Amino acid sequence: MADTKAPDSTRRSERSRRAIYDAALSLVGETGYAKTTIEGIAARAGVGKQTIYRWWPSKAAVLLEAFIDLGNQAAEAAGAGAEGYEIPDTGDLAADLKLVLRATVDELVDPKYEAPTRALTAAGIVDPELCAEFVEKLLEPQLQLYVQRLRTAQEAGDVRAGIDPHIALELLVGPLAHRWLLRTRPLTHEYADAVVDYALGGLAPR
Amino acid sequence: MADTKAPDSTRRSERSRRAIYDAALSLVGETGYAKTTIEGIAARAGVGKQTIYRWWPSKAAVLLEAFIDLGNQAAEAAGAGAEGYEIPDTGDLAADLKLVLRATVDELVDPKYEAPTRALTAAGIVDPELCAEFVEKLLEPQLQLYVQRLRTAQEAGDVRAGIDPHIALELLVGPLAHRWLLRTRPLTHEYADAVVDYALGGLAPR
Repeated sequence: MADTKAPDSTRRSERSRRAIYDAALSLVGETGYAKTTIEGIAARAGVGKQTIYRWWPSKAAVLLEAFIDLGNQAAEAAGAGAEGYEIPDTGDLAADLKLVLRATVDELVDPKYEAPTRALTAAGIVDPELCAEFVEKLLEPQLQLYVQRLRTAQEAGDVRAGIDPHIALELLVGPLAHRWLLRTRPLTHEYADAVVDYALGGLAPR
Repeated sequence: MADTKAPDSTRRSERSRRAIYDAALSLVGETGYAKTTIEGIAARAGVGKQTIYRWWPSKAAVLLEAFIDLGNQAAEAAGAGAEGYEIPDTGDLAADLKLVLRATVDELVDPKYEAPTRALTAAGIVDPELCAEFVEKLLEPQLQLYVQRLRTAQEAGDVRAGIDPHIALELLVGPLAHRWLLRTRPLTHEYADAVVDYALGGLAPR
């Protein structure tokens, strides 16, 4: 009996978990972080709020995992596997960076992703504690991929030896974030390509 | 009689105007954009709310002018004159850009400036209309200074001919905005200098 029960309850948990993620993301996108509550998430997901409290200590914790899951889904859809995006190393640094920045553009303009990400970013801007938690658990692991790829490029002689990868990566992701946040101009693949070319080649004549 | 009355009322208006700006900025920094009201600003400034409505049609309009005034004050304090920052043209592009990005760092970490700017940015991220108004009236005029300086640099041969100044400027301001918004690492003059050097020289070896 225990043998047949375990897979059933696992499937049920998995369904509930996914329903809770979806509810949390759609709710935060619609009403903002401050107005999103565990009760609201539970009601929309069709589960009791005790189910949520059993798995997560806070709404920030639910949302954090929901965003990680969303990123993993996007990576799986892009054929990158469930571990999330990796920055490829084909030996062509410009091409590798363009691939990953184009994928970032696709994610940022995807409506499923955009509303909750804007809501969470808005909350993080004025809430240092929330911001620190999401930067540590969600953003830093992604930025580390840039650090690693840029270090490999340094070893291959494609990036200057004195460059600090932590600053270099901000010349790549900073312009995308700036344009997305402030909506100054369209966020496109062409823009992503130009950012990579300008950052690698520099603005000054060679 | 009219001769003596006009300057008095001008001085009085000027005092009220400054008190309203201060009240609007401090209030939005403390409670956020959504919870800031014309009534609240009036109460804190010690004026009637009709005084505010006589001069401005909305709280967004008050805040817009308050931010412009704050920028002008910072520029005056930096000895740049009441017209706001200009990007100098000494013929040394790197030095000129470092000067203006260092001043931007100073402004972004100034407590008087930081809380209201974070509150307004958070509101703009989830409110496209508000964002568009502030980008058009507050941000674009500043970005145009970069466009002009980069065009002059192109004419002088210090920036490659094919570079689009609107993209190039985002390699300068984007990294600063990214670090400020997400608090990933300290926002310092050294960082501003590195961003300028990396953007002009490029990450790839020369």
